[in-house]
Amino acid sequence: MSNKKALICTIGDEILIGQIHDTNSRWLSEELTLLGFEVRERVTIQDRKKAILGVLGWGFQEFDLIIMTGGLGPTKDDITKNTIAEFFGEKLVENKDVLAAVTRIFEKYNRPLLEVNKLQAHIPESCIPLQNKWGTAPGMLFEKKGKMLISLPGVPYEMKNLMSSQGFDRIRNFFHTGTIVFKTVKTVGIGESFLMEKIKDWEEALPSNIKLAYLPSAGEVKLRLTAQGTNTDSLEKEIEIQIDALKKVASKYIYGRGKISLSKAIGQMLQERGETLSTAESCTGGMIAHLITSESGSSAYFPGSIVSYSNEAKMDLLGVKKESLEKYGAVSEQVVGEMAIGACKKFNSSYAIATSGIAGPDGGTEEKPVGTIWIAVSNGKEVETKLLNYQRERLLNIELTAKSALNLLRIWLSK
Amino acid sequence: MSNKKALICTIGDEILIGQIHDTNSRWLSEELTLLGFEVRERVTIQDRKKAILGVLGWGFQEFDLIIMTGGLGPTKDDITKNTIAEFFGEKLVENKDVLAAVTRIFEKYNRPLLEVNKLQAHIPESCIPLQNKWGTAPGMLFEKKGKMLISLPGVPYEMKNLMSSQGFDRIRNFFHTGTIVFKTVKTVGIGESFLMEKIKDWEEALPSNIKLAYLPSAGEVKLRLTAQGTNTDSLEKEIEIQIDALKKVASKYIYGRGKISLSKAIGQMLQERGETLSTAESCTGGMIAHLITSESGSSAYFPGSIVSYSNEAKMDLLGVKKESLEKYGAVSEQVVGEMAIGACKKFNSSYAIATSGIAGPDGGTEEKPVGTIWIAVSNGKEVETKLLNYQRERLLNIELTAKSALNLLRIWLSK
Repeated sequence: MSNKKALICTIGDEILIGQIHDTNSRWLSEELTLLGFEVRERVTIQDRKKAILGVLGWGFQEFDLIIMTGGLGPTKDDITKNTIAEFFGEKLVENKDVLAAVTRIFEKYNRPLLEVNKLQAHIPESCIPLQNKWGTAPGMLFEKKGKMLISLPGVPYEMKNLMSSQGFDRIRNFFHTGTIVFKTVKTVGIGESFLMEKIKDWEEALPSNIKLAYLPSAGEVKLRLTAQGTNTDSLEKEIEIQIDALKKVASKYIYGRGKISLSKAIGQMLQERGETLSTAESCTGGMIAHLITSESGSSAYFPGSIVSYSNEAKMDLLGVKKESLEKYGAVSEQVVGEMAIGACKKFNSSYAIATSGIAGPDGGTEEKPVGTIWIAVSNGKEVETKLLNYQRERLLNIELTAKSALNLLRIWLSK
Repeated sequence: MSNKKALICTIGDEILIGQIHDTNSRWLSEELTLLGFEVRERVTIQDRKKAILGVLGWGFQEFDLIIMTGGLGPTKDDITKNTIAEFFGEKLVENKDVLAAVTRIFEKYNRPLLEVNKLQAHIPESCIPLQNKWGTAPGMLFEKKGKMLISLPGVPYEMKNLMSSQGFDRIRNFFHTGTIVFKTVKTVGIGESFLMEKIKDWEEALPSNIKLAYLPSAGEVKLRLTAQGTNTDSLEKEIEIQIDALKKVASKYIYGRGKISLSKAIGQMLQERGETLSTAESCTGGMIAHLITSESGSSAYFPGSIVSYSNEAKMDLLGVKKESLEKYGAVSEQVVGEMAIGACKKFNSSYAIATSGIAGPDGGTEEKPVGTIWIAVSNGKEVETKLLNYQRERLLNIELTAKSALNLLRIWLSK
C-alpha cells in the first residue's frame, strides 16, 4: 500500500508548559510507523474547544487517521468529548457497556460512583467505544468516510492498553494495512556505537525489506528488526534467519528476545539450574532487589536482599570485617567481596550480587570520586569483582550499576 | 500584559517516527512559559517545503512568537532556510560575521572548510543572525510587524545555547514580557476525584488570574497554581495566600512543595528530629529502600533494609516467629508488625516500615486475593498497621504500596 497519513494530537497544558514529556506522541509515532503509516505531523494543543475543532477540521481534510490523547477525564476542564460530538453534529448518549465497565471499576476499588463518573458513560452516537479496564474514561473510535478518529485518555498506561488491546486491531482491519512483523533482540554490556561497529557488516547485508533500529536505554541496547511484506509466516522466517546471523557476531551481549528484562532472563537461568540468588546492596540501595522482584514468580529463586547502607549494617548483617572497612574503606574490592559472600551465607543462596560505591552527587573524594563503584558476584566461596566508573546523575549511576551487576552474574552463569 | 501567544515547531523525521524524544519542544515550552508566554500549540512536521510554508503562514496569523528547530544543517534535505527566505520573498546573502564564525569552528576542529559549509553563512536579507559558537549553523531571528520568528538548529545543545546566550534577551526586549509565577503543592493518600470534591469550594473561590491544575501520578496528586500579572513579588504573595487557604481544607494530604518527593519529605522530617528509618520489605521487594536511597544524603537517616522475600528470611533476619507465620500466614497483620519491630532492632533505627502482601498476578487465594497487602510502621515498641487492597498490575501494586507505607510513616511523624 502507499502509506496512509496519520496525525497525532495530544491535548494538555501540562505538556505545553513543559511540565511533562509528551511520551504518548512518541509511543504512538513508533507504533503507527511499524503499522506502515506515515506520521506526517504531530501537534499539541490546549484543552480548548476552538483548538480541538481546528485540529478535527484540518485533520479530516489532510490525514487518513487521527489519534488524539488527553482531555477525557472526569474533571470539568476535559472538553474533548463534547467537542467531538459537536464536530460531528451528534448528541451524547449513555452507553450501557461503558456504564457497566465504569461501575465495575468503582466496585473493584470499593469506591462510591459519583455523578461525575457516571457521565463518563455518555458518548457520541456514532462512537465505537474501546473498553477501558484500566481507568474510567472509554476510548472513542469513529469511522467516517474511509477515515478514522480515535480519542483516548491521556494517562499513558491507559492509552497504551486501549490501543494494544483494541485500537491497533481496528486500525488494521479498517485500513487493510499490509503485514509488518517485528522482533526485538535485547543486548547488555555494550554501548550503542560499539555495537554498531561490531555488527556493521551484518547490518549492511540485511535485505531491503528488513529494517533495523537501535533502541538504547540505561545500560542496554534493544535491536528491533522490522520486516514488511504480505505473508506473516515467511516474514517471521526471514527475520529469524537474520537473527541467527546476528548471534554469530554478537552472541555474548545478547540476553534475550522480545520484552524480557535482564532480571527475568537471569531468573530463568536460575530456575533451569534449580539455583537461587540474593543481593547485598549498598550504593544501589535496593534497586537490584526491586528489578528482580518486579518479575512475577521471582520468589522461586530470590529469598531476599540486605540493603546495607551503613557500615554497621555491613558488619552486623553481612559479616563484613571491621578491619576490611578500616583498611580499604566501604567502597573497595575487599568489602564488596565480603558483602557478596555474607549474603550467600545469610540467605543460604547459590549466588549473591553485591554493590558498593559513590552514587553522587556528594560523597566523592580525590581518591574515590563520584562514580567509583565496585560490584561483585559470589557463589559463597569464589568471588568475581569489577570496578565501574560512572559519572552521571545519581539515579542513572544507580541504574547502570544495577544492570552491570546483573550482567556480571549473567556472564558467570553463561560460562 | 495579556499573554503573548507562542508556537513551537520542531522539524524532523526522527521525531515523527518515534526514534527520539522531542526534548527541544519540552525545554522551549518550559522556558517560554516562565517568560510569560502562553505556548498555545506545538507542532512537529517533516522536513518538507510545503509543511514549513504551512506552519509559517498559519503561525504568523495566529501567534506572536514562532520558534522553529531543526532543518538548518549543511545536508541537502535541510530546507528550512530556503523556505523561510521564499516565505518572506527575500534573497540569501552572505553574512561576513557568520562566515567568520563558521570558519573559526572549522579551524578549531582542524577540519577543511567545504563549499557546503560556506553556504551556511548565506542567510535571508532581513535575518538577524544568532552567533553559534557550538556548531556551524547560525540561529536566524526575524522581526516582522510586531511578531518574531526564530529558527534554530535541531541539536539540543546548540539550540539551548543559542537561546540562552542571545535568543531570550532579544525576546524580552522585543515583547516587554510580563510575568507568570507558578507553584506546586504535592499531596498523597487521596485520589484525584476525592481531592477535587474536598477542595471544591476553595477552587471556586480562586481569583481569576490564578489557575489550578491537577497532575496525578501513582498514589499522588500534584496541584499546580499559576498566577498571571505584572509583578513577580505580588504574584508570589497572592499564590501563597491561596496555598495557606488550601492548607486549611486539605492539610493532612499535603506533604511538600515544588519538586520534592515523598521520600525526601520524610527524610527531612527525620533529619529535623535526629531520627532514623529502616525498612523490612516483602511484597515491595526493595522499592521503598530504592525510593529512599534515590535521594542524595539519605545515608544520614537510612541505615538500610532487609528484603525478606522468603519465610526463612523473615524468621532468620527479622525475628518473625515461626508460630505467627504458621497461624496467620506471611500476609497478615501479625507478621507485618513483627517485621517492622524486627527491622527497628536489627538496624537500631528509630522507625521501620514493613510490607507483606500479594503483588500478583499469581499467588492469590480465595481468602487473600491478589492485592491483599498489609503495611506497618513501628518505633520498635508500638506498631501501626493498615490493610490495603490494590488490584492493579504487579508493578503498580508495588509502587502504590510503597507510597502508602511511606505515607503511613509521614502521618505518624506528623502527629
